[in-house]
Amino acid sequence: MNSAASEPVLIGIDWGTSSLRACLIGAEGEVLDRVASDEGIMQVEDGDFDAVFDRLIGPWRTGRDLPILASGMITSRNGWVETPYVEMPAGADSLASALVAHETKSGARIHFVTGATTTHATGPDVMRGEETQIIGAAAIGMADGTFVMPGTHSKWVHVAGGRIEDFATYMTGEIFAALSGHTILGRLMEGSGFNADGFAKGVKAALAEDANLLHDLFHVRTLPLMGQIPATETADFLSGLLIGTEIASARRQAGTLGEITIVGRSDLADRYEIALSAAGLKSRRAPDDIVARGHLLIAKAAGLI
Amino acid sequence: MNSAASEPVLIGIDWGTSSLRACLIGAEGEVLDRVASDEGIMQVEDGDFDAVFDRLIGPWRTGRDLPILASGMITSRNGWVETPYVEMPAGADSLASALVAHETKSGARIHFVTGATTTHATGPDVMRGEETQIIGAAAIGMADGTFVMPGTHSKWVHVAGGRIEDFATYMTGEIFAALSGHTILGRLMEGSGFNADGFAKGVKAALAEDANLLHDLFHVRTLPLMGQIPATETADFLSGLLIGTEIASARRQAGTLGEITIVGRSDLADRYEIALSAAGLKSRRAPDDIVARGHLLIAKAAGLI
Repeated sequence: MNSAASEPVLIGIDWGTSSLRACLIGAEGEVLDRVASDEGIMQVEDGDFDAVFDRLIGPWRTGRDLPILASGMITSRNGWVETPYVEMPAGADSLASALVAHETKSGARIHFVTGATTTHATGPDVMRGEETQIIGAAAIGMADGTFVMPGTHSKWVHVAGGRIEDFATYMTGEIFAALSGHTILGRLMEGSGFNADGFAKGVKAALAEDANLLHDLFHVRTLPLMGQIPATETADFLSGLLIGTEIASARRQAGTLGEITIVGRSDLADRYEIALSAAGLKSRRAPDDIVARGHLLIAKAAGLI
Repeated sequence: MNSAASEPVLIGIDWGTSSLRACLIGAEGEVLDRVASDEGIMQVEDGDFDAVFDRLIGPWRTGRDLPILASGMITSRNGWVETPYVEMPAGADSLASALVAHETKSGARIHFVTGATTTHATGPDVMRGEETQIIGAAAIGMADGTFVMPGTHSKWVHVAGGRIEDFATYMTGEIFAALSGHTILGRLMEGSGFNADGFAKGVKAALAEDANLLHDLFHVRTLPLMGQIPATETADFLSGLLIGTEIASARRQAGTLGEITIVGRSDLADRYEIALSAAGLKSRRAPDDIVARGHLLIAKAAGLI
C-alpha cells in the first residue's frame, strides 16, 4: 500500500476473461493500492475463485471490514456467480439495485455488479464489466456522448445524463485473430510491430463509399501477391480494414457521431484514435481507473458506503 | 471409356487446390470419360505433378495423340507451372492466345489456360479455373449476365457477349470456417445437417436495411445464449448471415442484378439458391461439365483442334 493519507473505503475488482485487476479505493475514488493478475476467469483452475480471491485480495482485508464490489465476466456462466443482466437504460442506481451478494468460503461478502443487456431488432446484446467503467467515466464529467471500448469484442456505448442508453458489440478483435491465424490471409504476413502505412491503407479502404468487407478482405492477399503492398504492411492493412469497417458501421447506425471517448490505453486504443481521425471524427481518451470510480459510485448508490 | 460412338478430340483437366477432375471430350463437348481425384495441388507430394498426371491421364493417351488443356490452381505459384493472368475483358480468343505450353517428363504437351485478373479502385482480384467454366457456360447459350460460383472463395462474374467483363471474389466460405472453428461463435453450435430455419434467419438479418456484419455476427452467440434461437440453428444462422451479406454487397456493387446463374451442384450452391430467392433475385443453374465445354472452346480458338 502506498503512503497516501486517505483511508480506504472500498475494494473494487474488475475480473475479466483473461485478467483480474483490483483496487483499494479511497473516498474520492483515488486508488490507494492495486493488484493485477492474468488469472482471468478462464485461467482459474477448477473454478476455484475462492483461492484466487483469498490470495490476491486477502491482504487488504486484514484488520479491516471494507465493502467489496466485483464486476466483469466473473458474473457470467463460466464465472463465480452467474447474475442476470440489467436492461437499458442503466445508471448507477439501477446497477446498485441489481447487486448480487455472495459470501466466500473465507467469510467475505462480495457484491457482484451484474452485466447489462439491450435488444435491437436484429437480436440481443450483452456486456459484463464495461457498464461499470462507463458509470465511472460519467462520475468524472464524461456523462454524455459515445464511448468506444476497444477489445476482443469492442463495445460502442451511448451515454446520456450519466446513464447508459444503448450499446452494440463488434467482434472486430476476435475476427482479426481468426482471419490472420486461420485463413489464407495470414500466409503472406511478415514483420511485427505496428505498420502505420498498412493500417492507414486498410482504414481508407474501409471508409470508401463502395466498401465491401467480404470482398475487400481478399485484397489482404491480392495486394501483396501482386506486389502492390509489401508483406510487412499486410497484417496492419487487415487491422485497418476491420477497425475502419467497425467505425463506418457505428457511424451509419448512429446517424451522426460527435466526439468519441476512447476507453483504454492499449495499442489497440491507439489504433482506434488513428482510425477515428481518418474518418473525420474527434476523439478523446478516458482516464485510467474509471472502473474504480464506477465501483465507488455504485457502492454509494447502494448505501454500502 | 464408355461406348459412345464419338471419337475424343481433347483431354481437359480442371486441377484445383483440393481436387482434380479430368474429361475426355468429344467434338461437340460431350464427356466421353472422366477421372476425379482428391489429389489437388496441395495434396501432391513433393510437387510431383508428372507422376499424378501419368497415372490418371496416361491411359487416355495410349495409342492417341490428343491435345491436352489444363486450368485451375495448377497454374498458380504452388502449382506445376506458374502462368501470368489475362486482363479483363477476356473471352475464348484471349485465353487461347495466352495458353502456356509445357512438356511433361513423359513427353506429353500440356497447354495451360492461364488465370484472369481485374483491378478495382480498392485492389486487384484474381481467379484461376473459373474463367474456363464461364467460357464453357457461354458456349452453351449462357453468354450474358451475372454468374455466382459458390466456394471457399466465391466469385461473382459479369459476362457480356460471351466475354468475362469483370469479377469479384468474396471470402465467405473461408470466413465461415474460420469463425465457426476458431472463435467463440462456434462454442454454442450443435447438430449437423442443414437447418433451413437458422439459415433463413441469418439471410434475413443480412438483407435488413440496417445490416451491420461485424456487430450482427455477435448475435450468433447472443441469440442462443438468451434462448432466442436453438443451438441447432446457430451454425446455419452464421452461414445465412455471411451468404446474405455477400449477396447484398454484390447487388449494391452492381446497382441492379438480373437473373443470376449459379455454377455448381453442391450443398453450398443450394444455399445460394435459397438466399438469392430471399433477396428477391431470380436464379438458374448452370449445367454440369461446363468446364469441358470451356476447354473445347479455348482449344478450338487456339487452333489445337
